[in-house]
Amino acid sequence: MNETGTGGGQVRLETLMNDSHEELTHSGVNGERMARRLYELSKIGLTEDGGSNRISFTKEEKEAKNLAKLWMEEAGLTVKEDGAGNVIGRLEGASSKAVVMSGSHLDSVPNGGHFDGPLGVLAAIEVAQAWKDTDFVPEKSYEVVVFTDEEGARFNSGLTGSRAITGTLDPDEKRTLTDADGKLFEDVMQENGLSLSSIKEAARDFTDVDAFVEVHIEQGKKLEKEDLPVGVVQGIAGPSWLDVTFTGAAGHAGNTPMDDRTDALVAAGIFIAEIEKLPSRFSPSAVATVGKVNVKPNGVNVIAGEVQMTVDVRDIHEDTRNSLQEAIFAKACEIAEERNIEVTTKEIMSAPPVKVTEEMQQKAAAAVQKAVDREPYFLPSGAGHDAMIMGKKTSIAMLFTRSRDGISHNPAEWSSLNDCVHTVHALKHLLEDLCAT
Amino acid sequence: MNETGTGGGQVRLETLMNDSHEELTHSGVNGERMARRLYELSKIGLTEDGGSNRISFTKEEKEAKNLAKLWMEEAGLTVKEDGAGNVIGRLEGASSKAVVMSGSHLDSVPNGGHFDGPLGVLAAIEVAQAWKDTDFVPEKSYEVVVFTDEEGARFNSGLTGSRAITGTLDPDEKRTLTDADGKLFEDVMQENGLSLSSIKEAARDFTDVDAFVEVHIEQGKKLEKEDLPVGVVQGIAGPSWLDVTFTGAAGHAGNTPMDDRTDALVAAGIFIAEIEKLPSRFSPSAVATVGKVNVKPNGVNVIAGEVQMTVDVRDIHEDTRNSLQEAIFAKACEIAEERNIEVTTKEIMSAPPVKVTEEMQQKAAAAVQKAVDREPYFLPSGAGHDAMIMGKKTSIAMLFTRSRDGISHNPAEWSSLNDCVHTVHALKHLLEDLCAT
Repeated sequence: MNETGTGGGQVRLETLMNDSHEELTHSGVNGERMARRLYELSKIGLTEDGGSNRISFTKEEKEAKNLAKLWMEEAGLTVKEDGAGNVIGRLEGASSKAVVMSGSHLDSVPNGGHFDGPLGVLAAIEVAQAWKDTDFVPEKSYEVVVFTDEEGARFNSGLTGSRAITGTLDPDEKRTLTDADGKLFEDVMQENGLSLSSIKEAARDFTDVDAFVEVHIEQGKKLEKEDLPVGVVQGIAGPSWLDVTFTGAAGHAGNTPMDDRTDALVAAGIFIAEIEKLPSRFSPSAVATVGKVNVKPNGVNVIAGEVQMTVDVRDIHEDTRNSLQEAIFAKACEIAEERNIEVTTKEIMSAPPVKVTEEMQQKAAAAVQKAVDREPYFLPSGAGHDAMIMGKKTSIAMLFTRSRDGISHNPAEWSSLNDCVHTVHALKHLLEDLCAT
Repeated sequence: MNETGTGGGQVRLETLMNDSHEELTHSGVNGERMARRLYELSKIGLTEDGGSNRISFTKEEKEAKNLAKLWMEEAGLTVKEDGAGNVIGRLEGASSKAVVMSGSHLDSVPNGGHFDGPLGVLAAIEVAQAWKDTDFVPEKSYEVVVFTDEEGARFNSGLTGSRAITGTLDPDEKRTLTDADGKLFEDVMQENGLSLSSIKEAARDFTDVDAFVEVHIEQGKKLEKEDLPVGVVQGIAGPSWLDVTFTGAAGHAGNTPMDDRTDALVAAGIFIAEIEKLPSRFSPSAVATVGKVNVKPNGVNVIAGEVQMTVDVRDIHEDTRNSLQEAIFAKACEIAEERNIEVTTKEIMSAPPVKVTEEMQQKAAAAVQKAVDREPYFLPSGAGHDAMIMGKKTSIAMLFTRSRDGISHNPAEWSSLNDCVHTVHALKHLLEDLCAT
């Protein structure tokens, strides 16, 4: 159980500080500083519900990045901003040209929480500050990154900063995007002193980058159930999105006997119920979700003629995810055939899962064990993160911090200060390991 | 099989006339006249798709009523219009003050068909014309009625004319209704020379009314399957509408393991699939339909937190319909309990079924047998009709005419001229029986 005893929502300094953390303030890591910084960030874009509204490419995101720049400088980092608006603070290593990076993002979803993103940025800065305060200089260079537009709330297209820095973003795909006010992505870039060509220039050379580590809140309940402050991520599940549409015959709900119907919604109902049973046949970490349903004509007294659904399928292993996806398609066809109705199935999006290597998992596990003195716990990440993109170019590790009730993208999102600071210590151990030559 | 060989949609005179009907032109009933009148009506409010757009309280409905008045006068009826805009043509009986009535409506749904309503009006007029042409005067008086606003398309509130004539309409409930342009019901009444108080005055004394008979297209496929032009309605199913809402916990589709979900949509899927199995346990004529589903938040990667559904439940027997409704509520609660999620259930509308008495069914069956020389076929009406309202005040009978593919409220709605004229003969036999003293 997470016993913060708070109502969630707005990050009140006193609520954070109520949480026991004093015994964790050592080795340069300072719990009170973490609390103050979480609180300072929470005031930027604070919503009526106590949530965070810090959409990418707005003055709120900019203001938050400026605070981060200030704290990076305090921690002795040399700060620059790249052509995608990523903020990068660098500490030169004592003896090696190799670089280890850590960071996350500061943008939020509309009326989101105060930990998704900020915790990863503050943890990465806190390690640099701890090193400075304890006169420690790593062998390798260290870079803290604040990625631009991870959530993608403004243009329905996220991970912009990490895709730009890894050179995996084609700026042309952003050219036609507009925000809710009809503003073009390109025009919004210009307002932020950026452009489609500057985004292209943000692609960095990764030959000197040894690793990237991201701290993030779990956004799930596994650590809460295990009563652990921090866990080791095994891999990031790649989502694939499937479109399944059943087409029967619409008809009058009163005049069509039960045995003379081809009701698309009954087929959909059976399908939705069956999907729940499939993932465990393939992998313990696999999930499949029908979240979006569109019924036509959707009238009280009309038998549904068409039901369109999306299925979100994820696993950290690509082979099992693909097998699950095939099983879902097969189930849809089986139901359609049994009920004599039409079905179309297609994959509308597919991102490959990103594995954390066994070596990186073991290093992260050792760091967690040092920080928490508990048997390390391994868990998959169901959601995508900047680390997923960075994983295309370098070795990655992720540390998850316990989330109260698993709630995220919501003002009630909460992690206790104690858990946050435990995670900083784990990150510090891990970075010290990775930065050693 | 219905072998009209037409593409449906617009009622083309030549298409109707292609259908064999000559041998049915006898005893004063004239197939060609029926065809010409169906065609004349179809031109009023004809849509691009060949459908009918003759919304109540428009110049199109008025124009159609004026044609009906003309034909009533040709048939020797004395025509008046009541305070609700119902058109009533009366033939004085030879010897009795008792009245037998027949009719239907001339308004349509937007882009509807050309038979739903008009066929019942034209059949009732054709019987009067046949009597005139064969010098037959019934013992009882006969009234043909064109009811106003049966479909209720303009103000989402139908059966206006029959409710007014039976005194079962409280004009106050119409006071706040507005159409799509924001016009008040009352102002639209005034444009039509009517008012809320004139509607009240339309309530007629039913002490002299012996019976009401309505001819209508089946809007289902039973007669088509039985290869019969006309059938005898056993009763009109009263619909009850249920609201069932499952509430679980929304969550991230990637981060919430399958065994830690309270997915409202999976509960809804099981519920929808189970509902299909229930009606046959209670009555062969019972039906239950989930036609409308509202999923929240309805996001591709979000587990549904709430699913609200409506269930349309019908039967011609009130007791079995109520038992079915209870079983549906019980199933919803059982699923919610099993899955540890919340459910709320409520009845949002309920209209009692209207039975056709055994005596009236037998009279109608005898008339059909005389007209068609086939074993009469009995079937329920799943949809509501003006006869349902008239049944509150007098004995009713209904004759259903075969509908091609069961399609209705659609430009493709179609009944062959042969079937229509067979139905007129059956109606004529029935009315002659009912009008005898």
